[in-house]
Amino acid sequence: MSAFAILLISCQDQLGIAAKVTSFLAKYEGNIVDIDQHVEDNKYFMRVKWSLTEFGLQRHEIKEKFELEVAKTLSKTEIHLYFTDAKPKMAIFVSKASHCLFDILARQDAYQIEIPLIISNHQVLEPIAKAFGIPFFYLPITKENKAEMEQKQLELLKKHQVDFVVLARYMQILSEALICKFPNKIINIHHSFLPAFPGAKPYHQAFNRGVKIIGATSHYVTTKLDEGPIIEQDVARVSHSDSIKELIRQGKDLEKIVLSRAIYNHVNRKIITYKNKTFVF
Amino acid sequence: MSAFAILLISCQDQLGIAAKVTSFLAKYEGNIVDIDQHVEDNKYFMRVKWSLTEFGLQRHEIKEKFELEVAKTLSKTEIHLYFTDAKPKMAIFVSKASHCLFDILARQDAYQIEIPLIISNHQVLEPIAKAFGIPFFYLPITKENKAEMEQKQLELLKKHQVDFVVLARYMQILSEALICKFPNKIINIHHSFLPAFPGAKPYHQAFNRGVKIIGATSHYVTTKLDEGPIIEQDVARVSHSDSIKELIRQGKDLEKIVLSRAIYNHVNRKIITYKNKTFVF
Amino acid sequence: MSAFAILLISCQDQLGIAAKVTSFLAKYEGNIVDIDQHVEDNKYFMRVKWSLTEFGLQRHEIKEKFELEVAKTLSKTEIHLYFTDAKPKMAIFVSKASHCLFDILARQDAYQIEIPLIISNHQVLEPIAKAFGIPFFYLPITKENKAEMEQKQLELLKKHQVDFVVLARYMQILSEALICKFPNKIINIHHSFLPAFPGAKPYHQAFNRGVKIIGATSHYVTTKLDEGPIIEQDVARVSHSDSIKELIRQGKDLEKIVLSRAIYNHVNRKIITYKNKTFVF
Amino acid sequence: MSAFAILLISCQDQLGIAAKVTSFLAKYEGNIVDIDQHVEDNKYFMRVKWSLTEFGLQRHEIKEKFELEVAKTLSKTEIHLYFTDAKPKMAIFVSKASHCLFDILARQDAYQIEIPLIISNHQVLEPIAKAFGIPFFYLPITKENKAEMEQKQLELLKKHQVDFVVLARYMQILSEALICKFPNKIINIHHSFLPAFPGAKPYHQAFNRGVKIIGATSHYVTTKLDEGPIIEQDVARVSHSDSIKELIRQGKDLEKIVLSRAIYNHVNRKIITYKNKTFVF
Repeated sequence: MSAFAILLISCQDQLGIAAKVTSFLAKYEGNIVDIDQHVEDNKYFMRVKWSLTEFGLQRHEIKEKFELEVAKTLSKTEIHLYFTDAKPKMAIFVSKASHCLFDILARQDAYQIEIPLIISNHQVLEPIAKAFGIPFFYLPITKENKAEMEQKQLELLKKHQVDFVVLARYMQILSEALICKFPNKIINIHHSFLPAFPGAKPYHQAFNRGVKIIGATSHYVTTKLDEGPIIEQDVARVSHSDSIKELIRQGKDLEKIVLSRAIYNHVNRKIITYKNKTFVF
Repeated sequence: MSAFAILLISCQDQLGIAAKVTSFLAKYEGNIVDIDQHVEDNKYFMRVKWSLTEFGLQRHEIKEKFELEVAKTLSKTEIHLYFTDAKPKMAIFVSKASHCLFDILARQDAYQIEIPLIISNHQVLEPIAKAFGIPFFYLPITKENKAEMEQKQLELLKKHQVDFVVLARYMQILSEALICKFPNKIINIHHSFLPAFPGAKPYHQAFNRGVKIIGATSHYVTTKLDEGPIIEQDVARVSHSDSIKELIRQGKDLEKIVLSRAIYNHVNRKIITYKNKTFVF
Repeated sequence: MSAFAILLISCQDQLGIAAKVTSFLAKYEGNIVDIDQHVEDNKYFMRVKWSLTEFGLQRHEIKEKFELEVAKTLSKTEIHLYFTDAKPKMAIFVSKASHCLFDILARQDAYQIEIPLIISNHQVLEPIAKAFGIPFFYLPITKENKAEMEQKQLELLKKHQVDFVVLARYMQILSEALICKFPNKIINIHHSFLPAFPGAKPYHQAFNRGVKIIGATSHYVTTKLDEGPIIEQDVARVSHSDSIKELIRQGKDLEKIVLSRAIYNHVNRKIITYKNKTFVF
Repeated sequence: MSAFAILLISCQDQLGIAAKVTSFLAKYEGNIVDIDQHVEDNKYFMRVKWSLTEFGLQRHEIKEKFELEVAKTLSKTEIHLYFTDAKPKMAIFVSKASHCLFDILARQDAYQIEIPLIISNHQVLEPIAKAFGIPFFYLPITKENKAEMEQKQLELLKKHQVDFVVLARYMQILSEALICKFPNKIINIHHSFLPAFPGAKPYHQAFNRGVKIIGATSHYVTTKLDEGPIIEQDVARVSHSDSIKELIRQGKDLEKIVLSRAIYNHVNRKIITYKNKTFVF
């Protein structure tokens, strides 16, 4: 498998940015395989992916050279550089529901990731973790011990050098302390078509409102519950004859597929966040 | 074209309702072409459609006979009887946007309806009404004259014996007085996936929230803005690269299709409303 | 969990069938929870589901009584009676692809089924079977031993009293001998939107044709390859930028969801087959 | 409204194409608003759109300068240059079905096109053409006069300087002579999910096959019936209870929406065709 570099760029919009970036890559014989740009609020965003096979710069040189030759001629530039053969480390948080966990583990190979640990406030899914050979940490949370348990979570994430966290139907609200350590690096799946039906029991809310379509939403976690930048959504048609139980059953397939797409986009560095939105290139 | 009868039944749930209804129809040689039931909150709802071709009762006899032979053995029964060759009279309210109006008029024949009039608070769509040969009434509304104009609207609806009203992107909020005269008989199209983004400028709201899917919702109008029983919804996938203008453009197709399906279901007597929901059989 | 009975009826269309069936159930105090009918080619098809809780007949009496009191007054009647607390036995056939197998096993509880065995012509998925505690039989197939291996398959299915078979991306064509033993009881998943792209390498075919939407189709296996009655289909939007590899990746989610819905409908006795079609009630 | 230029480029793939194109535009102060590329079979395809507002070249200079400064350094280059304020002239061919025609005419303004004429082999839609003030030419076609009528069609298209043709459910097969005059410039709507159900009566075919989803496909017309490059497709879920008549009714909405999207993409110069496929940027 040949390796590629991915560069995410945000800067003040001005004439000729694409020319500068692509000329830089051409100069060092970087063959571009993907290029996407977006302009919003007079800001410029770009994702460019190129082959490292014949690229004339060493990996550790790229950022410095790019800053010297390109970024310094732009304004308010922010860049992130990734390599496709680096396997990011993903922690999974779960509670009792198994469908998202199973789905993630079953497609583990497709993601090019490592899963060093699973953390849960319940023990019920431990056998699944074991079957897949992944360390499972049971950290039961009560009102009283929440701060302490989150501290343990943080230590585990640090110890295992976790790059990002997936809340696979984890039924606890994270505290600000934990969220701020992983800005745009905690992915949640909410079982409704946000912003409709935030908070608890969205399928009950959907049933009572009589909607004809249900949905699921994957988003980055911020300190505002269910209001972080949306990464991916999908929906399914339902009817009045579907009971709440039936909505929950059908919704599980939505949840796992939507969450898996969000993880895929995150891992493949397709996402730039801006304000409270994502640009998914 | 052969004619059919449609009976919508709501009653207290109990054993044997389907047997009673179908036996009644079998007794008079009514060939059932559609039968659907739904139970919610211990209440029973049924829609049954049968051929009138060989049916042994005259149209005017059906209701009385049914009440005598079936309904009186049930509890809290409410029935509505319709005939498929009766063309209901539909009024259309519009403002400036033409896409829903065009779509309705273009498929007029498919609906088996009559459109005796179009009412608008703007003059811009009058040429379309003329092209289709439908009387157009221009009733400009200001804060000051709103009550008076609604009175004129009511008179027009009464004079033309209107059965139900379609708000085809009519940009005025109806007053309670008008709504109460047409309970579950005023169909609105809202340009969002309700309950997300009620009220004004839903595409702007959707853009700012960064949703990945936009929607449209058709519902019966109640006195609570955008909160009436939902009849039909549909959605379309969008991306960050779609501007608000682009969302509006794409949304128009959703709006007209969703509204047309709602009208179709209403005209074909497929809908029973209960609480704030619809059962669409 | 209360138990229900499900009756699937096919007969010559005539007046009053619904009345006869529902009156029979009412007579013995069977509370109907689902009733659906369909008429095609002057033939009548019905699915009715009722509660056994207060039902006045013993399970073993139902069929005889129904035949005596209802079926004999109809013409060309064929009935199937099921009870929702009977767990049908499902065999899974796999080759190398794991996504459908994982998905089925992960939702095993939701199906109300037993999975007595997994049969494969490759060994690669045996660890998954073991992790879920299900007997795995490795029967490698060559041109020479195909008849012999199918004989072994049949013996295993018989020995484990298998009710129906799911081909979860099993990459061998079944012989007529095996298919005829399980009419409308072998469910396959084909990785295209049939009848487009039957046979081998459908994603390659789709890529070369330049379609904008890919699909998956679950159907009952007949002796005509990929031409059996379709149970369920679903689709996903793709673009020219999706490589064949990418179509395969995205298609896996379609395949597993479509197959799971087909199994769900089969297990819940929602399907009547007629000619080469299914009616999914 | 400010004007933009759109350049479609096809050439042999090589290093640095994007850099050359974007540097050319930057040199003359062309602000890029859209840039997309695709590589297939070692061939490179690009669509780039930039603002003409401050662009340093006159419109008539662009092509020559681009060829001199960029294209000649590439291999096997083919370019097409368009300006967004040029209104292409579109002819519509119809037969008896009105839904696509109505839909196109109703959204005429949104397209930035001119419709100089409508040609039909039936008279029934002439009133619609008149209502919209568009010249209507009735050219009835028989086996005997087909060559002669197509000659008249060609003369009309030439006389009205037509840029491209839309077959809005035109029920005649065009002859090779006409097709070859408008390569990738005749857009057809076929009422199935191609390649499933090509040819006549696709809804009948779909009904008989028992598919669970119907579709519509818009494609460029080639001399192979229903086999030209696909531009756009969409689908709708159906069930066994939908009669052929009902499939036709529901399909009409698919057809008109899919055709309108294809026209939109064509008019906005989003399409490059290669082999028998389209890249829709």
